Amino acid sequence: MKYLNILLLFIPATIVERFILHTDDSIVFVTSCLAIVPLAVVIGDATEQIAIYTSPKVGGFLNATMGNVPELLISGFAVKAGLYSLVLASLAGSIIGNILLVLGLSIFIGGLRFKIQEFNKHIVRSNFVLLSFAVFSIIIPFAFLKFAGNDAVAGDIQRFSIMLAIVMLGIYVVGLVFSMFTHKDIFHDAVEDAEPEVAKWKLSTGVTVLAVATACVALMSETLVATVEVAADKFGLSEAFIGIILIPILGNVAEHAAAMMMSYRGKLDISIEIAAGSSMQIALFVTPLMVIFSAILGNTMEYIYTPGELLGIAIGVIMAGFVLIDGKTNWLEGFQLFIAYIVLGGAFLMFGI
Amino acid sequence: MKYLNILLLFIPATIVERFILHTDDSIVFVTSCLAIVPLAVVIGDATEQIAIYTSPKVGGFLNATMGNVPELLISGFAVKAGLYSLVLASLAGSIIGNILLVLGLSIFIGGLRFKIQEFNKHIVRSNFVLLSFAVFSIIIPFAFLKFAGNDAVAGDIQRFSIMLAIVMLGIYVVGLVFSMFTHKDIFHDAVEDAEPEVAKWKLSTGVTVLAVATACVALMSETLVATVEVAADKFGLSEAFIGIILIPILGNVAEHAAAMMMSYRGKLDISIEIAAGSSMQIALFVTPLMVIFSAILGNTMEYIYTPGELLGIAIGVIMAGFVLIDGKTNWLEGFQLFIAYIVLGGAFLMFGI
Amino acid sequence: MKYLNILLLFIPATIVERFILHTDDSIVFVTSCLAIVPLAVVIGDATEQIAIYTSPKVGGFLNATMGNVPELLISGFAVKAGLYSLVLASLAGSIIGNILLVLGLSIFIGGLRFKIQEFNKHIVRSNFVLLSFAVFSIIIPFAFLKFAGNDAVAGDIQRFSIMLAIVMLGIYVVGLVFSMFTHKDIFHDAVEDAEPEVAKWKLSTGVTVLAVATACVALMSETLVATVEVAADKFGLSEAFIGIILIPILGNVAEHAAAMMMSYRGKLDISIEIAAGSSMQIALFVTPLMVIFSAILGNTMEYIYTPGELLGIAIGVIMAGFVLIDGKTNWLEGFQLFIAYIVLGGAFLMFGI
Repeated sequence: MKYLNILLLFIPATIVERFILHTDDSIVFVTSCLAIVPLAVVIGDATEQIAIYTSPKVGGFLNATMGNVPELLISGFAVKAGLYSLVLASLAGSIIGNILLVLGLSIFIGGLRFKIQEFNKHIVRSNFVLLSFAVFSIIIPFAFLKFAGNDAVAGDIQRFSIMLAIVMLGIYVVGLVFSMFTHKDIFHDAVEDAEPEVAKWKLSTGVTVLAVATACVALMSETLVATVEVAADKFGLSEAFIGIILIPILGNVAEHAAAMMMSYRGKLDISIEIAAGSSMQIALFVTPLMVIFSAILGNTMEYIYTPGELLGIAIGVIMAGFVLIDGKTNWLEGFQLFIAYIVLGGAFLMFGI
Repeated sequence: MKYLNILLLFIPATIVERFILHTDDSIVFVTSCLAIVPLAVVIGDATEQIAIYTSPKVGGFLNATMGNVPELLISGFAVKAGLYSLVLASLAGSIIGNILLVLGLSIFIGGLRFKIQEFNKHIVRSNFVLLSFAVFSIIIPFAFLKFAGNDAVAGDIQRFSIMLAIVMLGIYVVGLVFSMFTHKDIFHDAVEDAEPEVAKWKLSTGVTVLAVATACVALMSETLVATVEVAADKFGLSEAFIGIILIPILGNVAEHAAAMMMSYRGKLDISIEIAAGSSMQIALFVTPLMVIFSAILGNTMEYIYTPGELLGIAIGVIMAGFVLIDGKTNWLEGFQLFIAYIVLGGAFLMFGI
Repeated sequence: MKYLNILLLFIPATIVERFILHTDDSIVFVTSCLAIVPLAVVIGDATEQIAIYTSPKVGGFLNATMGNVPELLISGFAVKAGLYSLVLASLAGSIIGNILLVLGLSIFIGGLRFKIQEFNKHIVRSNFVLLSFAVFSIIIPFAFLKFAGNDAVAGDIQRFSIMLAIVMLGIYVVGLVFSMFTHKDIFHDAVEDAEPEVAKWKLSTGVTVLAVATACVALMSETLVATVEVAADKFGLSEAFIGIILIPILGNVAEHAAAMMMSYRGKLDISIEIAAGSSMQIALFVTPLMVIFSAILGNTMEYIYTPGELLGIAIGVIMAGFVLIDGKTNWLEGFQLFIAYIVLGGAFLMFGI
């Protein structure tokens, strides 16, 4: 993971290119992409250090929320730039990537070492019930729109989108109450599994690093969004590829690596927590927040994924649920999730929907 | 529950309005709706009293069947009046209401008091396998029709509808054989859980009350169906709202209250039995009976739900199945089912499909 | 089963009709159909005998693979004749028939004798995860095509079909590695359940019989394919009926009978292994092989089932998964799978999609 820090050099490089040299947008895009990868790691590290100074509850909440900072910032700037389909694509891609690619590779890598890996079914179930709720909820507007045909007025869809976003955020908050207060003991095991950490940084250092890193991610995200269209054109990348595959990977490389490492060490619980928890947060927290943000900016983003995105999310959730339902995994199950990601990715690239 | 009896006054009120005062249909509609609520309770009470005089088997069958009398009568009169889409909407709404609203609130209310509620998985599984069978069966004609396009002749669809209705009724009978004869011991627990009842009424009283109450429901149902169109127009209610939400609630208020009360007392088994059993009966007994009834009247009702109804039923069954699969529930799961009902209801109201 | 051997007489009959008497194609079609039934049994017997002389691993592989010889040959000749929709229909019908008809009747028949039948959940899960992977994978091209509309070029679909076929074959091989090498102990129980067999034939006899029977199946398959169109016309059979129902039954009568007999003897494990294993092989091995075979012949078969076929496969897998998930079955569950087959079959016959 340390070698990633070299990529931090792309922060000043991007700034110089964009504001001083006025390099071509496509180059700026590439370096801003590369700069986000290590920044996500730094944010993670700083949050972890700060969390040690807080109660476990606040710490858990901090870790969960700050892990989404890159997604939040990239999506936020994309919403501001009106790139709505890119926003939904990248959030769908993030969910699909987490439950098929990350989870699949984690289970596969762990499965190569351990014949059967077991984990706490209860935590997974709670996350999956929440995630399946989110999936069904986002299918509804699509299905009604699809069949309502011309009768549905854009205004209706936007109003329904806002209503749905508020409901989703409500469920997210309610889910937090569930996991942090009324039923926190169910989630105990996984917390215990994590090694107790000793703070390596002072609290003030942690806060400073977090603030600076977040500011840098914000700048890089804004740059990325500002240059994505030129870059897509230049490199002949479809919006589907950038949204579904590229952006989701940028903001999650660190989490992905952590999930796989944990599984390799036999701590599949934590890998699943990262992958399933992260998808759940994107679906129930980041995405609805973006809908509401767009509404505040005055032009509500329609909360309607494309059929391909919806299909990918639904297949991902069903397959992952099927693999996880019995509390045990083996390498073949991980391999299949991974291959499903490849097949879906291929379909997105070829048919671009 | 006793306060509901005051609503019985709406029976004479409705009769006077309709036949003597010739009040506007919209008013008659409202009072007939209100009159059905307590009548459903009276039918339930009378059936329970009669059941005490019979063998447990006959009693269970009586309770299960008579609980559907309001649905049967309302649907029957609607079929006779040719309001086919209202019939299917109200039956779909009844299924969705049972497995999302009633089950959700029951689990939620019970979950506020008991951290984890457990129940007999075997009974639930049997009901859910039957219900999922019904769901898949009703998806088939829709899907084939959808994709067959113009090629499907109306006559074919009607013939297929009758065939399907007969198959569904057959499965219902076979399911009764299963639960009352060959595998009745699986269903033992839930029966034991119910408190043994001592008859409060004489058998003759029970039968008389049942007969009178059923006659009243019949009259009120006929009145409701006769006035629904004017009322819908007057109050600006969409058919979707009346069919999916209003009518299903009228005939089930009593059952809904009973289910929640049982869960609050820690008897979630009975709540689930009520909600899942009731949906199953609507899907496998009442609906196909209506198709056959319409065929006898000479104009076969096409056994084809709208996409929205189908989606609602499918989502309801999948989500409830997912929540119930592990034999335990908590308040969050109930809350999510409830919210799913709200989201679906919102979609029906806004897009009206 | 011995009476089936009388049907072997249809082999010379078919040859005489076709090459000497030049009987009408519709008659040749019927006799070639009838001739395939006992040949499938002979191939099974011979493979079993040969398997006794090999290691259990090779034996298991032989049994699994040679059981698909009739499907492989019929499909192969149909591909060669360019009857692509018939190929996909018959393979879809084979999957649906295995998991609804064969599995349903097996569970039902066993359930009449044993109140509850239990089986090894782990084997079933492995097969079902593979099967569900196949199902989701074949839904993807359909869904993307459906929604991509005119944008998808035929060439793209063909390229994607080949890619998908290669991935499916890869997963099949990987699945074999899993079940025969890394996790073969999970599959131990079922193997032990099977009675240890003593060879009744010499190895050379087995190989000779296998070779001759396979040659005969090849000839009969080629004849069947050559005459199917005339026969369909003559008898007024839709392609849907021939593909989805007739051909799948021909090649599988023997396996079907064996599955039911095993369940009747209380060995439901083996019945499930036959039905689920066979579907899985059709989905992951035979079908992609046909796509690749067609590509080699120069005109790639599009790997896209009709909506009805897809729906049938999806419903079959979901219902069977639902029935098998708890490791226990009863007659009602078997009955429902069987009825689902009847309902689907009725829909195919009536709406022909």
